[in-house]
Amino acid sequence: MFSPLIDELMRSLRCLPGVGPKSAQRMALHLLERDREGANRLANTLHKAIEGVGRCQRCRTLTEQDLCGICNNLRRDSTLLCVVETPVDVLAIEQAGSYQGKYFVLMGHLSPIDGIGPDDIGVDALLALVQSEAVTEVILATNPTVEGEATSYYISERIKPLGVVVSRIAHGVPLGGELEFIDGGTLAHAFSSRRPL
Amino acid sequence: MFSPLIDELMRSLRCLPGVGPKSAQRMALHLLERDREGANRLANTLHKAIEGVGRCQRCRTLTEQDLCGICNNLRRDSTLLCVVETPVDVLAIEQAGSYQGKYFVLMGHLSPIDGIGPDDIGVDALLALVQSEAVTEVILATNPTVEGEATSYYISERIKPLGVVVSRIAHGVPLGGELEFIDGGTLAHAFSSRRPL
Repeated sequence: MFSPLIDELMRSLRCLPGVGPKSAQRMALHLLERDREGANRLANTLHKAIEGVGRCQRCRTLTEQDLCGICNNLRRDSTLLCVVETPVDVLAIEQAGSYQGKYFVLMGHLSPIDGIGPDDIGVDALLALVQSEAVTEVILATNPTVEGEATSYYISERIKPLGVVVSRIAHGVPLGGELEFIDGGTLAHAFSSRRPL
Repeated sequence: MFSPLIDELMRSLRCLPGVGPKSAQRMALHLLERDREGANRLANTLHKAIEGVGRCQRCRTLTEQDLCGICNNLRRDSTLLCVVETPVDVLAIEQAGSYQGKYFVLMGHLSPIDGIGPDDIGVDALLALVQSEAVTEVILATNPTVEGEATSYYISERIKPLGVVVSRIAHGVPLGGELEFIDGGTLAHAFSSRRPL
């Protein structure tokens, strides 16, 4: 309906997550009618980011430097290593502000059905890191989903022979949550993982 | 929190309508982690579209050609001219499929508070078009908002001296709409614009 170049722009915008045909149309026309400067800036930044952003050589998170800001920070406790699935998980834990150790980002989870095995989530790099640095405890903070739990179990089995403490973050009723609104699985887990006071 | 280039990408993505900080973060990480090819295609298309897409010389809609597909179509009735606010309105009318005339796209509406006057919506170009082509009827299809109505009134006052019929599309209860759920303004308009059967 629109001219070929505008149609192509709409199709390209659909690579963005959560953007369907109607949103893509709205975005394309907004950029062309009202914000060509922003569109130009976006195109340039996309090019720069695709070329510049790679993986941190130590923790595998996304960064344009060789080592990310946290791995480079000498004040972080490098005896603690927290294993998470994605860079957003690092952000969430950093915003909570209580963890002072370092991270290892799997960039995914084990998922045999999608062909994602231990090599794809860098388990060997994780084991090498645990051995080469004086890590005393590995904290597994993968998501409490079926894949996350399986990944967590697999990694713990691989790390235990190295004689390093392996722990899993606690799962249960969130603070401020009302029991009435908590799902059954979480409640059952909260009961089975109860601690003596 | 993320590295500077990733933060810059998140900021740039916010030029898209309806994209806040959380969506921008999700989009940036999705592109960098999983769809660099799509991101590259998007950046290239953005550049091409910004450079290539201009205005149709006749109807002012967005197109990369001198004349858009509809203006170029000799089978369209050029004695009818429909005036709309944006290219999306053209799309909506074309999808309804009943109109066979041509269009003029204002690319906005009169809005003195935002400094948008008759020059910005191309009223002179519209008048020149009405005079140079054998237009017999101008159909005003601006939105039924305060600004759209004002724009419509202003244009009709400018066109009437040319001796051309000026009409406004009908507003009232939409087909399939139930009276119970129609707002008062629309209902009042439907009564005042009633037609003898």
